[in-house]
Amino acid sequence: MEHANMEYAKMSKEQLSELLSEQYVTFNRYKNLELSYDLTRGKPCRDQLDLSNDMVSRKYLKGFNSISNQEVRNYGVLDGIPEAKQLMAEMMGVGTDEIVVCGNSSLNLMYDMLVRFMLFGTGGNGSSGGSEPWTKQGKIKWLCPVPGYDRHFLVTEKLGFEMINVPLTGDGPDMDLVEELVKDPAVKGMWMVPKYSNPTGEVFSDAKIRRLAAMKTAAPDFRIMCDDAYTVHFLGDAPAKQLNLLDACKEAGNPERVFLFGSTSKITFPGSGISAVCGSIANIKYLLSYLTVQTIGYDKINQLRHARFLKDYKGIIAHMKRHAEILRPKFAAVDKILTNELEGLGILTWTHPDGGYFISIDTLPGCASAVVAKAKECGVKFTPAGSTYPRKNDPEDRNIRIAPTLPPPEELEAAIKILCVCVKICSIEKLLAE
Amino acid sequence: MEHANMEYAKMSKEQLSELLSEQYVTFNRYKNLELSYDLTRGKPCRDQLDLSNDMVSRKYLKGFNSISNQEVRNYGVLDGIPEAKQLMAEMMGVGTDEIVVCGNSSLNLMYDMLVRFMLFGTGGNGSSGGSEPWTKQGKIKWLCPVPGYDRHFLVTEKLGFEMINVPLTGDGPDMDLVEELVKDPAVKGMWMVPKYSNPTGEVFSDAKIRRLAAMKTAAPDFRIMCDDAYTVHFLGDAPAKQLNLLDACKEAGNPERVFLFGSTSKITFPGSGISAVCGSIANIKYLLSYLTVQTIGYDKINQLRHARFLKDYKGIIAHMKRHAEILRPKFAAVDKILTNELEGLGILTWTHPDGGYFISIDTLPGCASAVVAKAKECGVKFTPAGSTYPRKNDPEDRNIRIAPTLPPPEELEAAIKILCVCVKICSIEKLLAE
Repeated sequence: MEHANMEYAKMSKEQLSELLSEQYVTFNRYKNLELSYDLTRGKPCRDQLDLSNDMVSRKYLKGFNSISNQEVRNYGVLDGIPEAKQLMAEMMGVGTDEIVVCGNSSLNLMYDMLVRFMLFGTGGNGSSGGSEPWTKQGKIKWLCPVPGYDRHFLVTEKLGFEMINVPLTGDGPDMDLVEELVKDPAVKGMWMVPKYSNPTGEVFSDAKIRRLAAMKTAAPDFRIMCDDAYTVHFLGDAPAKQLNLLDACKEAGNPERVFLFGSTSKITFPGSGISAVCGSIANIKYLLSYLTVQTIGYDKINQLRHARFLKDYKGIIAHMKRHAEILRPKFAAVDKILTNELEGLGILTWTHPDGGYFISIDTLPGCASAVVAKAKECGVKFTPAGSTYPRKNDPEDRNIRIAPTLPPPEELEAAIKILCVCVKICSIEKLLAE
Repeated sequence: MEHANMEYAKMSKEQLSELLSEQYVTFNRYKNLELSYDLTRGKPCRDQLDLSNDMVSRKYLKGFNSISNQEVRNYGVLDGIPEAKQLMAEMMGVGTDEIVVCGNSSLNLMYDMLVRFMLFGTGGNGSSGGSEPWTKQGKIKWLCPVPGYDRHFLVTEKLGFEMINVPLTGDGPDMDLVEELVKDPAVKGMWMVPKYSNPTGEVFSDAKIRRLAAMKTAAPDFRIMCDDAYTVHFLGDAPAKQLNLLDACKEAGNPERVFLFGSTSKITFPGSGISAVCGSIANIKYLLSYLTVQTIGYDKINQLRHARFLKDYKGIIAHMKRHAEILRPKFAAVDKILTNELEGLGILTWTHPDGGYFISIDTLPGCASAVVAKAKECGVKFTPAGSTYPRKNDPEDRNIRIAPTLPPPEELEAAIKILCVCVKICSIEKLLAE
């Protein structure tokens, strides 16, 4: 084809129509294969899960006492056993007095935290008095860097917050816009995934971390929910170095501004890992004063199992290298196919993440939903278009999140080839309709 | 002593004074031993914990797939894996479509449920519309059968409910009073522990279960939080038979009135067990619509481990018999010492439970705090007097909860003997002051 690598937008309607017919031939060939592939969620694959099988053997539970001689099989210990706190504090980059190690779900910790703010307020900043419960403060507005994680947005949607989109720029959110928006006292906080952000994979720059920590907010009880879900989830040799937001907040004199969240969900077993919440000492005290009402404590046997299996930060990094070895070829395969099929056509941009679980693609405006629907006709499920935006509403209908981790390589490659055909078809149809 | 077994109230002041001196001799002997015993919490002892050690061996995780072929090591499955639902549904006496199997803490499930009512309302009854969030309904009142579980009362205290004491009578609450109180539309629900209630050990009668299910409540969104924590925790040969409150509510045409809670905390490992919440199909649907926002799912590996280790209801009962063998002598020892030391003196009544974790004692009015303080002077810690009442306020200062399970037999016996001396001293001092 002489028009290979020519920008679609520069083609004539005739050229586009011809190309469309060709692509439908390919599309129908795929469709007839009756495939059933699922690239919707950021799940580890079986080989990754196998890396941690040994953890559930009895050998890590020869004794049932923690290093501080606590019996882990019985009630007691609200904030986590010392070795689990040590392990998670190293990973999260905080002190052991700035962390509580909890159960299997960091999402649940974030949900709980916002519910706590709603019912009881944020508990004040340092020695200052507590804040009013958010249920008594009228409309709550919340900043949502986009594209972002659908489950974050679902929490703030269900709690009735007005969500405000803030574009991500490749190294964090548009900070000029953030600084403008927080002048509204109804804006009570924001979501963020600082490293290998879901789905763009971007790493927030230290400069933007500093601005988030230092900016003047009209709401004294402004809180950043910082989901550091991918802090050690690199694809190369080591995790990106990044200024810790809690450190930055302490330095800026706003130590209570942030809660950090993390977990071993994509280190050991999703749904059977351990999670942690970090904050200033005042924030941890605030948290524990409510946690003690909510539960007797978290699963300490699983905390002990994790601490003994992963050992320390070096142990975590060694383990994550094994994950990276499995994942790197998958991310590379996606990138290679997208490059081969779509480079120079002007119909798709995509990210080149150094970590995390996703590749984020942007189609021509108005095409994302059509692409996902088209792929589904071939039996390939992608995360629904719009999912990466609050209320599932991508105003430009451009963004699709690709989750390359779960499928075996041959399925992944077939799925991405199908995606490319669908992107071509939908782009051409869009251009022809203009 | 000629006045052994004579009612203290019938003694002269001289007799009482003489007796007091004798008791202080004994008391000081104990005090000089510098003991340090803890009978504060209902914790299983080491022998009980050892019954479940095998569960954490790898042999129960030879395969990682549930019976419906779900990979338990990965994300997915919000309502529990089928074998865990089957196991817990049998134990709770409900259908597998009337249960969600969750994480390590049933207390957390109860807290969450009340928080849900506060923020979102109860979701209506059957096909009827939803209720207003309780935060928007003004003062919330809550019935608290007393004496009861301190952690229940702490939850409703923290949520700002006005708690109303309802006396337990030996076979459940004073139902005439309950039926009167629920005529107030601000009364939105009640706590209960239907079997081997904490701390009285009483089993609610079927007649009272039926009245709770059928009574007319002014609040359409009235909810019973039924914590069936000790449903299989018998001390004899088998658990007491009891009408299931959910069945009774369905029969009475109020299927949405109750949520049942249970866990394996005192079956396998406290803090590392699995929990469950049960309700009508409409209530389970309501629950899942919020749970799906809150978390991706619970620890399915631990669910699988439990299901394979305990197998089925018969397996649970066989396991609980082994617990009963360890606990029966401890409960018997307490009863024997109390009988030997205090029977006929008219200064203490105590319960004779067939299950559960506690013996509940009632001193003369105004003596409980003094007894606990006195025992502490000898190094024996009991649950603080008042703890069994909302806001730690026992209006008559009579009730003390004894938790005989954790200490080794010789410690337990010494502690109870010390308790008896303290009861005698405080009773005499009270009578002398009158």
